[in-house]
Amino acid sequence: MADDVDEVDDGSRELHELLHERLLEGLPPAALLTDPQVTASYATDMASFCAAGTPAAVVLPRTVEQVQHVLRTAHALRVPVVPQGARTGLSGAANASDGCIVLSLVKMDRILEIDTVDRIAVVEPGVVNAVLSRAVAERGLHYPPDPSSWEQCTIGGNIGTAAGGLCCVKYGVTAEYVLGLDVVLADGRLLQTGRRTAKGVAGYDLTRLFVGSEGSLGVVVRAVLALRPAPPRQLALAAEFPSAAAACAAVCAVMEAGLTPSLLELMDRTTVRAVNALGKMGLPETTEALLLAAFDTPHAPEDLAAVGALCTAAGASAVVPAEDAAESELLLQARRMALPALEALRPATMIDDVCVPRTRLAEMLDGTAAIARTHDLLIGVCAHAGDGNTHPIVCFDPADEDETRRARASFEEIMALGLELGGTITGEHGVGVLKKEWLARELGPVGLEMQRAVKHAFDPEGLLNPGKLF
Amino acid sequence: MADDVDEVDDGSRELHELLHERLLEGLPPAALLTDPQVTASYATDMASFCAAGTPAAVVLPRTVEQVQHVLRTAHALRVPVVPQGARTGLSGAANASDGCIVLSLVKMDRILEIDTVDRIAVVEPGVVNAVLSRAVAERGLHYPPDPSSWEQCTIGGNIGTAAGGLCCVKYGVTAEYVLGLDVVLADGRLLQTGRRTAKGVAGYDLTRLFVGSEGSLGVVVRAVLALRPAPPRQLALAAEFPSAAAACAAVCAVMEAGLTPSLLELMDRTTVRAVNALGKMGLPETTEALLLAAFDTPHAPEDLAAVGALCTAAGASAVVPAEDAAESELLLQARRMALPALEALRPATMIDDVCVPRTRLAEMLDGTAAIARTHDLLIGVCAHAGDGNTHPIVCFDPADEDETRRARASFEEIMALGLELGGTITGEHGVGVLKKEWLARELGPVGLEMQRAVKHAFDPEGLLNPGKLF
Repeated sequence: MADDVDEVDDGSRELHELLHERLLEGLPPAALLTDPQVTASYATDMASFCAAGTPAAVVLPRTVEQVQHVLRTAHALRVPVVPQGARTGLSGAANASDGCIVLSLVKMDRILEIDTVDRIAVVEPGVVNAVLSRAVAERGLHYPPDPSSWEQCTIGGNIGTAAGGLCCVKYGVTAEYVLGLDVVLADGRLLQTGRRTAKGVAGYDLTRLFVGSEGSLGVVVRAVLALRPAPPRQLALAAEFPSAAAACAAVCAVMEAGLTPSLLELMDRTTVRAVNALGKMGLPETTEALLLAAFDTPHAPEDLAAVGALCTAAGASAVVPAEDAAESELLLQARRMALPALEALRPATMIDDVCVPRTRLAEMLDGTAAIARTHDLLIGVCAHAGDGNTHPIVCFDPADEDETRRARASFEEIMALGLELGGTITGEHGVGVLKKEWLARELGPVGLEMQRAVKHAFDPEGLLNPGKLF
Repeated sequence: MADDVDEVDDGSRELHELLHERLLEGLPPAALLTDPQVTASYATDMASFCAAGTPAAVVLPRTVEQVQHVLRTAHALRVPVVPQGARTGLSGAANASDGCIVLSLVKMDRILEIDTVDRIAVVEPGVVNAVLSRAVAERGLHYPPDPSSWEQCTIGGNIGTAAGGLCCVKYGVTAEYVLGLDVVLADGRLLQTGRRTAKGVAGYDLTRLFVGSEGSLGVVVRAVLALRPAPPRQLALAAEFPSAAAACAAVCAVMEAGLTPSLLELMDRTTVRAVNALGKMGLPETTEALLLAAFDTPHAPEDLAAVGALCTAAGASAVVPAEDAAESELLLQARRMALPALEALRPATMIDDVCVPRTRLAEMLDGTAAIARTHDLLIGVCAHAGDGNTHPIVCFDPADEDETRRARASFEEIMALGLELGGTITGEHGVGVLKKEWLARELGPVGLEMQRAVKHAFDPEGLLNPGKLF
């Protein structure tokens, strides 16, 4: 037995050495990390409860040619490749598998072009979302997708996970802003998809296929992104409700009235209290649900007044419009603080991401509260309410075995509830490792088979981010 | 030789009889058309210069189960299937191939659901675009995609071709409005893709893959469509320019200024005169290019004033804002009349659909005019100028062999020019039969290979709409 283990170790060590040698044929030494202590730090993203393996190497290429060399090498040696951005993902999609090459795109971080007439940006995948947002804002333009991690996360990661954010109720998700891609395929060939024109229907929409594919079909090395004109600054209001159901009724009324808020967010009582505890934000502690609405229209005060009236009609106990853009920004900061505030309550959190039709939002929130009670757990919910996209955040102590088991069970029940209500197991965080089994339940056997068929068409050897999605 | 021919005929006749018999096992007799004179009338869509074969049968199913039966039968007998909507397509994508089953979805024309809170419609594929648009308008909602053929074309056809229209400069194309699909696969199995929620990233985006796939990956039998709140009625203006280049400069200035018109259309002098000749519209005959802009914002008059000022700065000789919504509608009618008006000039037309970055629009228009001069042809251009999407319409007489040869040559040169300018061979009409060779040129060998790999993943026997796209 001992001999066998040694033999395996030796074989693996030899393969690693060969791999490193081959990688260096097309990479500068500084672009290859092999120290196990260093490479181990690249093993995971920010998801809880997701297994990760030990990488054989981490590479940090700076050019398309270097990425092609890495993929060709991996293909020749049949070594799996795990693409990574800033590793802020919440589903384990960027977790290393044993013996893989971690392909970090963070050094490919140039904004190659911003065109104010064609309203496009051309970027490398490692550009940080906030960096791009600020660069286009300086030119009078707007790149809407704004995931919570926007100060850290990269455009490549946003494309891989089809990231959303607070803007989606008006502006949609990352997918709507990706016009064209350069992608290095599993065998190292370069594929160009899409276009830099406003429209185009030349062949199957492979661009969109790569968005949300979690690095399992190819490695994005360049993206043409659509931009919008910069809107006026948002003006917000907060409304307090005596129940989550009343807040959800207000959400439905707002959407049915044909209003288009730039943001429509809900925080439950647990979240409101956590935010107050962390940030001294002075939110109303006695409210059962706090709704935040904002408009970035030229006539925002009138739009907010209409929302305020609908909130009151739905039973709001108080409606507080912000005085100006600065006060509005404070409200949004409170919302952005929700996740860190809940994380501060207990040693660990587990974030779910179920999206239901907004007509079913009240049932989703009430059902989640019931699940928390059944399992005696602290679950705070913040939701992109206008989208029906809830983030129940289960707070627990991993050192407490029983609580951990209950946390895990509640997470599964929340996903089951989402599917029951005609929703999806993931509105914007993706599947990764965390929700593989649930993807199969959502898609059913025919759906899953066609997903696998697409995977096989792009990566017949199964080398790109294996073990993710399905 | 004569014997051989008889034998082939007999074999084909026997196969047809077997096919008809099998089809009737799962279809009511009225849903199967076999009279060659009748079936021949289903052989083509509205494209010029596209070969079409002779169908073995036309089926008109009314239920998903009937479609599944047709596909299972076709799969068992290895008979190709050509899905059809209203056959208003302009690329030959709905043309029959020899011995195929034409699968017309026009009898599956029910609107199954309109939800004003979730802002979705669930429809069968045969619903006519205008019927849906009116039905949702009655509920205070808006389904934006508005191809010129909207009074005839079906939602299934719109999905198959990823159809556009006048609305796209603000509202995008059909693809942006398709949330989920039920699709019958080549072997008759039913696949459900996507969702009815506002967001969702569960697995690869197969929904979007089917949009624009021209019936070559599966048959759409149900669609969940996103709707928007009904906007205010559009207010329009017309601006006359001394050159196409000046009009294009105005288009660029409007987009660079961060304005978002609901429509930004250009007609060249040939088109303006043709519209006047057909419709007595009283458009300015001496103008070299007429630009139409419209806004459906609450502050449309101010937005139009801003556009007017930019047009004047770009050299417009006259800027004429419509007095009211009714006068605006007249301007839009003039634009909608462009294609029939040009069709009335000569016995036949050939419509191109090249989309370029809007920064290159002037070069595209000037280049097209030069091609018309070189070949001594009448080519009228109308363009979705805000999108950079031009429709050069070549008018010719098919009885004139030389003119036909020149028309064909000009068509090819226009596509080559589009690619040279960083554009695409098709902004919204699709590839079909018409642009197969050009698709290969636009995508290159790696792109084409991956397109074929996707096709193979969904339709390994190549039975769905064979000979289209590539």
